[in-house]
Amino acid sequence: MKRSLLIFFLALSPFFIHAQTTQLPQLERVEPMFWFTGMHNPKLQLLVHGNQIAKNEVQLSYPGVNLLKVNKVENPNYLFIDLEVAADAKPGSFQIAFSQKGKKTFSYTYELKARNQSAGRIQGVTSKDFIYLLMPDRFSNGDPKNDVVKGLQETTLNRDSMYYRHGGDIQGVMNHLDYFKDLGVTTLWMTPEIENDMKNASYHGYAATDNYKIDPRYGTNALYKTYVEQAHAKGLKIIKDIVHNHIGTGHYLYKDLPMKDFLNQWPTYTQTSYRDQPVMDIHASEADKKQMLDGWFVPSMPDLNQRNPYVQNYLTQNHIWWIEYAGIDGLRLDTYPYNDGPYMADWAQKLKAEFPNLSIFGETLVSAVASQAYFTGGNTVNRGFDTHLPGITDAVIKDAIFEALNGKPGWTDGIFRLYAILAQDFLYKDATNNVVFMDNHDMSRFYSVVNEDFNKYKAGMAMLLTMRGIPQLYYGTEILMKNFSNPDGLVRSDFPGGWPADKTSKFTAAGRTEKENEAFNYISKLANYRKTSLALQTGKLMQYVPQDGLYVYFRYTPDNKKTVMLIFNSEDKEKTLSTTRFAERVGQATSATDIITGAKLNSLQSISIPARATLVLELN
Amino acid sequence: MKRSLLIFFLALSPFFIHAQTTQLPQLERVEPMFWFTGMHNPKLQLLVHGNQIAKNEVQLSYPGVNLLKVNKVENPNYLFIDLEVAADAKPGSFQIAFSQKGKKTFSYTYELKARNQSAGRIQGVTSKDFIYLLMPDRFSNGDPKNDVVKGLQETTLNRDSMYYRHGGDIQGVMNHLDYFKDLGVTTLWMTPEIENDMKNASYHGYAATDNYKIDPRYGTNALYKTYVEQAHAKGLKIIKDIVHNHIGTGHYLYKDLPMKDFLNQWPTYTQTSYRDQPVMDIHASEADKKQMLDGWFVPSMPDLNQRNPYVQNYLTQNHIWWIEYAGIDGLRLDTYPYNDGPYMADWAQKLKAEFPNLSIFGETLVSAVASQAYFTGGNTVNRGFDTHLPGITDAVIKDAIFEALNGKPGWTDGIFRLYAILAQDFLYKDATNNVVFMDNHDMSRFYSVVNEDFNKYKAGMAMLLTMRGIPQLYYGTEILMKNFSNPDGLVRSDFPGGWPADKTSKFTAAGRTEKENEAFNYISKLANYRKTSLALQTGKLMQYVPQDGLYVYFRYTPDNKKTVMLIFNSEDKEKTLSTTRFAERVGQATSATDIITGAKLNSLQSISIPARATLVLELN
Repeated sequence: MKRSLLIFFLALSPFFIHAQTTQLPQLERVEPMFWFTGMHNPKLQLLVHGNQIAKNEVQLSYPGVNLLKVNKVENPNYLFIDLEVAADAKPGSFQIAFSQKGKKTFSYTYELKARNQSAGRIQGVTSKDFIYLLMPDRFSNGDPKNDVVKGLQETTLNRDSMYYRHGGDIQGVMNHLDYFKDLGVTTLWMTPEIENDMKNASYHGYAATDNYKIDPRYGTNALYKTYVEQAHAKGLKIIKDIVHNHIGTGHYLYKDLPMKDFLNQWPTYTQTSYRDQPVMDIHASEADKKQMLDGWFVPSMPDLNQRNPYVQNYLTQNHIWWIEYAGIDGLRLDTYPYNDGPYMADWAQKLKAEFPNLSIFGETLVSAVASQAYFTGGNTVNRGFDTHLPGITDAVIKDAIFEALNGKPGWTDGIFRLYAILAQDFLYKDATNNVVFMDNHDMSRFYSVVNEDFNKYKAGMAMLLTMRGIPQLYYGTEILMKNFSNPDGLVRSDFPGGWPADKTSKFTAAGRTEKENEAFNYISKLANYRKTSLALQTGKLMQYVPQDGLYVYFRYTPDNKKTVMLIFNSEDKEKTLSTTRFAERVGQATSATDIITGAKLNSLQSISIPARATLVLELN
Repeated sequence: MKRSLLIFFLALSPFFIHAQTTQLPQLERVEPMFWFTGMHNPKLQLLVHGNQIAKNEVQLSYPGVNLLKVNKVENPNYLFIDLEVAADAKPGSFQIAFSQKGKKTFSYTYELKARNQSAGRIQGVTSKDFIYLLMPDRFSNGDPKNDVVKGLQETTLNRDSMYYRHGGDIQGVMNHLDYFKDLGVTTLWMTPEIENDMKNASYHGYAATDNYKIDPRYGTNALYKTYVEQAHAKGLKIIKDIVHNHIGTGHYLYKDLPMKDFLNQWPTYTQTSYRDQPVMDIHASEADKKQMLDGWFVPSMPDLNQRNPYVQNYLTQNHIWWIEYAGIDGLRLDTYPYNDGPYMADWAQKLKAEFPNLSIFGETLVSAVASQAYFTGGNTVNRGFDTHLPGITDAVIKDAIFEALNGKPGWTDGIFRLYAILAQDFLYKDATNNVVFMDNHDMSRFYSVVNEDFNKYKAGMAMLLTMRGIPQLYYGTEILMKNFSNPDGLVRSDFPGGWPADKTSKFTAAGRTEKENEAFNYISKLANYRKTSLALQTGKLMQYVPQDGLYVYFRYTPDNKKTVMLIFNSEDKEKTLSTTRFAERVGQATSATDIITGAKLNSLQSISIPARATLVLELN
């Protein structure tokens, strides 16, 4: 999520404190609706929602399941039931019996499923991978039957407007798994797929109204699970995009609040400052910190109070549930800096305890390496507080690459900016967990950022795929989709060919223009090369102080057997580079292969680099 | 020292490898020429220089002094004599006898003086102080007899050129101690006063030719000692500016090198890259690191090899000698990032072991808080390597203040830049040791940087004197001296009134224009207030996210008894500030005093700030 959406939501969302309850059934829901045996954490807290449910006594009997406590809260429509599931509890079902004055009123059949220990689930996403980010409403409409779903608040489809639903869905993504494979992608990340039953702009996905349900316009929970399984079968991994910070105003937990402090409440509507600094600034005021963390992102997204243990349990269990249910490989955490730090650290440890291979990275749209480093786990900078967050979205390296491509040369500008930012990696415990990207759904498309300059586009893509960290592409950037994030949101345009009615399909070479194919093939070539390149996947990085308008870095395996060299010519004239200075990395190599063209360089004494060109060479 | 001087030196200095020896006396010199009893470190290494001195045997006899080893090196004109001075050795003199084939050739009378344990020496310079930096050649000519000294290479005086000597000296500084007191200064820092017997631009002081001798054009060693004593008597402290990285080509150690690796030698002249990044970058090449550290600053300044133990001993003892001899309070280390890290860490520990109260700060003209933090001791960022450097020159906060004053507002620009940079203080162990400054001898003068805008000038001076850290003023900025560092070096102009022939003297209110007096009085008012303000001297800092074009921070004592509030209005219109948001710091205060005007604000509910104004308020 991003501030640029703000004005839109402010205009559309007049509510910011919780509304009245509707007439509820006696038992509306139990969440998690089922659970698993064999979890690391034996504790489980069921949220039970129903009309005046707190008047009931609760009983259950199942070997290995212990009812620890039934918590009543301010709102009598909720019960929070604390269970302990012993390590030896067997999969099976049992009744949770509700009764009043000794008389049974109703019951719920609770199931404990066996954990799915199959190989190939929850694999983790690492620097060996290449992530493709897409918005499910805007990528491909695989199932026109679910375009408009009765009973949901947004009732129209309008592909001509960026703010309405377009009909894309999970089936659409599943239909194009081979496309991703061709492109060299290894991992898919969809913006959130869970229900967003909001009146307006429900497509964007960051205003959840049911944390346990795939939005029916995208598909079903079962289809989502199938999507993960089919992706895995194809050798693709799946990242789920989750939101700790807020829900949507259409969420039942907002419409019928369990307790006042389930949300961060303010006397009058108070928005976050969107400033990360108060979180880490040793000179910050409590007032600024509170506004940043507890202020609402927008009026339509109630801000959850993550210091409330019921909120903590609810979110943490929900995320564990999805991973175990569907076999997800990694999580992307929305608006990371806006969350409560100690809770998020505890959350990350709990998730990793259940799923040691799970990958996690947080969205940190900040402006300084120090800020990004502050949010990453195990770093040395933040005075004893460990966030336990493995990775972050590296917006700072993105901006530095933009400066290298677009900036004017200067002591600290142009390529020197990129060089100097990368030189701050010592602030991280391990920057190879950083997700590197050139664009996403919240920002201008990369091809527009470089003013549709194809040399710069290639340079950016080459750096993306050779930089330390986990590269991430935004859908359509491979076919030169363009536009700026403001004011019209066109960066969320549909992928051409994703809809049955589309006249051309960019999913096939035949449907792409020559230039689009050149772009696609450029990325595909590098990405597929990367799939087997230890140097690019896990190799070390060595960069050199830019000289003569040239920026040079190497990726190499610690045994020096594999070395990839990137040379970026930032100037408008051809350059000749002597490699004497790079002896540490060039070593005994005497020739090289251009990864893109396949051309062979039979001498490394000096290398010619055309004006504005970027070379990616494998040294031989 | 700074790159802008480079071209000048390159043009003037064709030599970069050591020249031949001249005809030496049998015993040219012994350094340190005397030493002290009661030092923490019992070890002492005497450098002895004389024609073919290595042919001699060495003997001495003195209670408590042990001759450990006589080291011969490549050049037979040197001996390095290792002594151990026992803790109970008494002050006194003894002969160091030189002999050949059992026959005494000559001797040197070596003296051990008692350490001077008087109170008021070596006091340290802290955030309670206010430093005034001046260039002795350009401040005041107190002794016209030493303007040109026979036998030295630079033989002319030319006040019309920035590159020639102007005749200023230590006596000139001593003549104006009351001026500093009036201004509210507590500490003087002269650019280096030791001999720079260079043919050209010898005034600048960073090309030493004798590390044990005050340049005779500035005075004598004895006068320097008197200067420190008189300053102390007036309640002023003294900082000495020292250079580890290089010497001048006129130095005897260069003209008659003890050994080849006394210097960092290169096959052909190789200049430093002036890039600090290779020192800390985990992705740096050894080649880039070597160029940064071992490359020469300019051809006229041979780069000392600080991995050579003879170099180490020579420098370390020289600095200890000066402090003990003259009673200096603090050291400023030139070109800190260009030095060998492990040596500098060892050096700092040795200096602090001898003088626990001594203050030390390094010149770090770098571009990122991360870089500055890397160089400071005890920080958490640099992966286990502790520089043991207490303080640095905070160029990054200076640039951020400039951006706050001159920049256009934006999400990360204008006052938000300053806010965000200060918010990175968590990278330091203790940023209150940072030396804050608006200009110095290597950069454009502050009044010119703000385009001679008096409101901005006052804002910068107010921030300088209320910011965390140790404020430092550059001579003449208090009287609105201006000019840019390039291309003409006019930032090193003479202080008007410092020479007998000067028509007007800016040392007195009568000699200053109305505006100059306003500037002088502004600084004097704040600086003298600061002298007794615990909030400004050692108080904590709290800053607030800028709002409505206003940037607000507080300095306050931990007991909340004293609070100073700074409000900077970055916009061209008057503003009214509600203080509700600042409740944490305003507390029970209901009124305030404007430090500059003395005006009383009888309510703190809202405060008016004129367009572009800066208020410094003491809350009551």
